Amino acid sequence: MVERENVAADAPGSGHVTLIGAGPGAPDLITVRGLRALQSAEVVLYDALIDERILEGLTAELVYVGKRNGHHSVPQEDINALLLKYARSGKRVARLKGGDSMVLGRGGEEILFLAKHNIPCDVVPGVTSSVAGPELAGIPITHRGLADSFVVLTAHRRCGDEGAFSIPQFHASTTVVVMMGVSTVEHWQQEMLTLGYPGDLPVAFVTEASTPHQEVHRCTLASAPRAVADQGIRSPSVAVVGRVAGLSLALSPAPALPVHAGHP
Amino acid sequence: MVERENVAADAPGSGHVTLIGAGPGAPDLITVRGLRALQSAEVVLYDALIDERILEGLTAELVYVGKRNGHHSVPQEDINALLLKYARSGKRVARLKGGDSMVLGRGGEEILFLAKHNIPCDVVPGVTSSVAGPELAGIPITHRGLADSFVVLTAHRRCGDEGAFSIPQFHASTTVVVMMGVSTVEHWQQEMLTLGYPGDLPVAFVTEASTPHQEVHRCTLASAPRAVADQGIRSPSVAVVGRVAGLSLALSPAPALPVHAGHP
Repeated sequence: MVERENVAADAPGSGHVTLIGAGPGAPDLITVRGLRALQSAEVVLYDALIDERILEGLTAELVYVGKRNGHHSVPQEDINALLLKYARSGKRVARLKGGDSMVLGRGGEEILFLAKHNIPCDVVPGVTSSVAGPELAGIPITHRGLADSFVVLTAHRRCGDEGAFSIPQFHASTTVVVMMGVSTVEHWQQEMLTLGYPGDLPVAFVTEASTPHQEVHRCTLASAPRAVADQGIRSPSVAVVGRVAGLSLALSPAPALPVHAGHP
Repeated sequence: MVERENVAADAPGSGHVTLIGAGPGAPDLITVRGLRALQSAEVVLYDALIDERILEGLTAELVYVGKRNGHHSVPQEDINALLLKYARSGKRVARLKGGDSMVLGRGGEEILFLAKHNIPCDVVPGVTSSVAGPELAGIPITHRGLADSFVVLTAHRRCGDEGAFSIPQFHASTTVVVMMGVSTVEHWQQEMLTLGYPGDLPVAFVTEASTPHQEVHRCTLASAPRAVADQGIRSPSVAVVGRVAGLSLALSPAPALPVHAGHP
């Protein structure tokens, strides 16, 4: 019956889904375009890792689709079905994801699914924590003379492909950024050592980047698993592996803004 | 004489420099924090590739330090000296860079220089065109089953190190994003083929991403140099090399915002 109602409401152009990258955490690290799209949305589906202050003042219906108290995330199929349901009811739907939707965020899958059902979509890029996390901790992921390229990978095993990681061969001038790699640190560290990455290569873990709880822990590749255990490094963290992880740019708090700064 | 004036004005804490990533081009793809910092700045030093609409309405003194009509950029030393001069005169200085300051943007060098002179700095991350360029063209740089990691590199030869590129070994599940690679396409294409990248690997060039002049050109690795010549692909472009470059997610224009959307 619900299914028939949905079909009846499925007029062409009736609804729309906008995928929005929320950035690394702090509410003001969303883009101006992303904030405007949130403000004009009628429904917002949002993940874990979204700072809920970003949702304050919105008039939209808020639908949480992240993990709950240690339980698993809402399955992707259920998120897809929700997006379809709201879009078919004619709503302007915002799909808010941490970081950028296309960086290990399954944004492409959601767009393919919606396109198959003739739901118009657009995307608003976000600041990816793979770059911003290190940056806010004073670590430039590229730096002349130290790194002219960087790799971003997730330390989860790939689907299929005999469980290999996509860790590249060692290249001194390439920074490796490992996302979601705290619990798997022994695996990727061992793989890197096997590939010839030096044990004394600097490593930095940036935890909860851009939030009031941001922490930075430094170690070497050889000592990374011990650092995670001894220093209590927790998720979500971005791990930076490479010569730039030995840098620590001196960053000061931003100056207080003059009162007349105006909106936004 | 100017030098003595500068020294006289160099009271501790008198000035401040904020490095701001402007994003890929469109003025509303800057972050909310970045826009606020611009609005409260007294001086803005900005590069080429910045859409000047982002500067409209600012009360700051605007100082252009990018390329002029085919001439070379202002040398980095001169930019550093300008930053120091304005900061020492007690100004809130915004240093606005395309994309993100730390992605091949020399932001780290500017912070190190300023720190050496006791000028407080902070950074506001930006949306990097390495991710957003492909994304806005319907290409997810990661996508389940096709790519679980990505590499970002510049196709300029590295300083020192016998002129090698940092192109990684071929890995089918890794997307390679080549920045500023139009004029050097023959070099990196040849290097990739030598490394065993398949000639039929999809390639997409995204030119002037996020601007009204955005273009997407598709080819294969084997045909990339010919495509650049025949299709008139121009700079600035981001080249995406990998299986995801064969995807074309259907993106629609964003819906018109309701009038009551409010600021920003």
